Amino acid sequence: MDSSSDAASRFYAVIPAGGIGSRLWPLSRASAPKFLHDLTGNGQTLLQDTWDRLLPISQGRTMVVTGDVHAGAVSEQLPNLDFNDVVLEPSPRDSTAAIALAAAILAKRQPDVIIGSFAADHVILEEDKFRSAVAEAVEIAASGKIVTIGIRPTEPSVAFGYIKRGKQIGDSKAFDVAKFVEKPRLPKAKKYFESGEYLWNAGMFIAPAELLLQILAKTEPALERGVRQIAEAWDTDQRAEVMKQVWPTLNKIAIDYSVAEPAAAKGLVAVVPGEFEWHDVGDFAAIAELQSEGRKNHLAVLGSARVLSDSSSGILVSETGRLVALIGLENVIVVDTPDALLVTSKEHAQKVKSLVDVLRQSGHSELL
Amino acid sequence: MDSSSDAASRFYAVIPAGGIGSRLWPLSRASAPKFLHDLTGNGQTLLQDTWDRLLPISQGRTMVVTGDVHAGAVSEQLPNLDFNDVVLEPSPRDSTAAIALAAAILAKRQPDVIIGSFAADHVILEEDKFRSAVAEAVEIAASGKIVTIGIRPTEPSVAFGYIKRGKQIGDSKAFDVAKFVEKPRLPKAKKYFESGEYLWNAGMFIAPAELLLQILAKTEPALERGVRQIAEAWDTDQRAEVMKQVWPTLNKIAIDYSVAEPAAAKGLVAVVPGEFEWHDVGDFAAIAELQSEGRKNHLAVLGSARVLSDSSSGILVSETGRLVALIGLENVIVVDTPDALLVTSKEHAQKVKSLVDVLRQSGHSELL
Repeated sequence: MDSSSDAASRFYAVIPAGGIGSRLWPLSRASAPKFLHDLTGNGQTLLQDTWDRLLPISQGRTMVVTGDVHAGAVSEQLPNLDFNDVVLEPSPRDSTAAIALAAAILAKRQPDVIIGSFAADHVILEEDKFRSAVAEAVEIAASGKIVTIGIRPTEPSVAFGYIKRGKQIGDSKAFDVAKFVEKPRLPKAKKYFESGEYLWNAGMFIAPAELLLQILAKTEPALERGVRQIAEAWDTDQRAEVMKQVWPTLNKIAIDYSVAEPAAAKGLVAVVPGEFEWHDVGDFAAIAELQSEGRKNHLAVLGSARVLSDSSSGILVSETGRLVALIGLENVIVVDTPDALLVTSKEHAQKVKSLVDVLRQSGHSELL
Repeated sequence: MDSSSDAASRFYAVIPAGGIGSRLWPLSRASAPKFLHDLTGNGQTLLQDTWDRLLPISQGRTMVVTGDVHAGAVSEQLPNLDFNDVVLEPSPRDSTAAIALAAAILAKRQPDVIIGSFAADHVILEEDKFRSAVAEAVEIAASGKIVTIGIRPTEPSVAFGYIKRGKQIGDSKAFDVAKFVEKPRLPKAKKYFESGEYLWNAGMFIAPAELLLQILAKTEPALERGVRQIAEAWDTDQRAEVMKQVWPTLNKIAIDYSVAEPAAAKGLVAVVPGEFEWHDVGDFAAIAELQSEGRKNHLAVLGSARVLSDSSSGILVSETGRLVALIGLENVIVVDTPDALLVTSKEHAQKVKSLVDVLRQSGHSELL
């Protein structure tokens, strides 16, 4: 067995399936978050797409971390997911707790495991290129690195954090990570975009589980001890009991702050540039964009709507099966669900989040 | 008893309640046409408003002519309407059949009756001025004229027919009608508007029933014989039988062509200018206009919607009670009904009719 196939055989995928996707309200709800929806119109949810995309390299070795209210939906959508590979969070405690617990459970089972964490709600086209990048990242990770896959920017977006790359690593496609930077304002985003030295941070992390936990032990020792403690009990009859006691005590912190940035500062992080098409589909304008495939004046339709459109463009999402008639509207967004209707335009797509905040503050929690 | 109160005591109101109001789809349907809706937000339907507006001068002497499918809704909405004053049409046969049959029935009961026919689906503010105009029209009618009430134009509208007035009649407020003209194109509408000699034709006709029938006997003799025949049987146990036999044979023709224009040509028509605020509310833009009462950027809301609006203007009509969220849309029209949703803008309000035509042609009759 050469070292390449050795590293690949140590790979285990982790899918943190959390986050509601407030900008996609009223489609996305606490009870039916973004990853449980088909936002590409291919007949599968984003979670199923994520599972399938990883399958050729994971061979089904995949752990899903999600909210306990989604247990039913997740097991229904992923029939091949092993019961012992589902981590149900009694409450959301941010990405470090989710990913580190998965790392600790998997490291307990297989100390040299290399985990790869991928969001459940992104859209990736050109999946072969994606898997090549992951395979490359796994090789680099095996040499003792935290590896991220950075997306080659296609525009100076202010919606994503950026990764500044450093030196190329040997003759690989990977680079050292000079630093991670937060979502910039437009002038900086333009500078990053034009420099060619920055990649989008898509939140993909590939690392030996033990390395990730060792870094965490330095930055968040209580959190590291907590996930180790749960992991010890995981494959025993103490799982529920220990989870119940320890999980609520875990510090809420994004993995970018607890692991990625501190590790980058120590020169422990590498980045593999992703050459595949990647979409965050964070709001309805992004979905419309994705669906239009560059066609001007296209009306994208997701769901069961019967549509009668007279010179309208934008996106219609329907969960009701009602007839929807649109006349003379450009870049419109119509989201038709049984108990709530959203009508706006692409230029205001980001404002949906504020509207959800208003709903929350005004006590309409049944609609969230 | 002076002659004035004599004429007034001969007055009988007729309300032809027909027409679906296609431009108000999906609110207005064959099963729930425009006149059965509250389009002003005052808690009453347009039909009820029409009844109430006439009551001080009709004293309840009012006949309603409507489609037989609306019998239940009409009797529910007008509890004081006498059963013998409801004419149920087995099929729509245009305005002459509707109004002439009412005239014939009422003339049979009271040969000197003066009928006044008023659409069931218009909005009239300043009702006192309306009733003054009707009272004036009744006096003129008693002298042997067909009298219409013309609306003082507030803009060069192309949505209405016009009435050209001739000489003033004595020292009354009435004028001879020189001629009726069809809905004009804009240049002509502007000429009419600027001349000050034209009034909008709101389809209001006040006339001795016998005079109306005599004119009809010249222009549409078979139609006149037909309604006389039904009227003979109306207050007998033959009503249903004769109605069933004769009604389907009646010629379909608008009263403008069968009575008003021929009578005007013979100098038999007078017009009383109406100084009251009148609205046809023919489409959603007109309803929005009416509701806004001149306020800029106003969002009118009709119905049971819970609304969350972020800088949106226009009109929202809801029959579902769902939450409707609108963000950043100017002059939007959203009509939310249980089986159909319309989204358009005020500038396209007139196109709703074409959309209904498409629905009809494509076999969606269940939605019409």
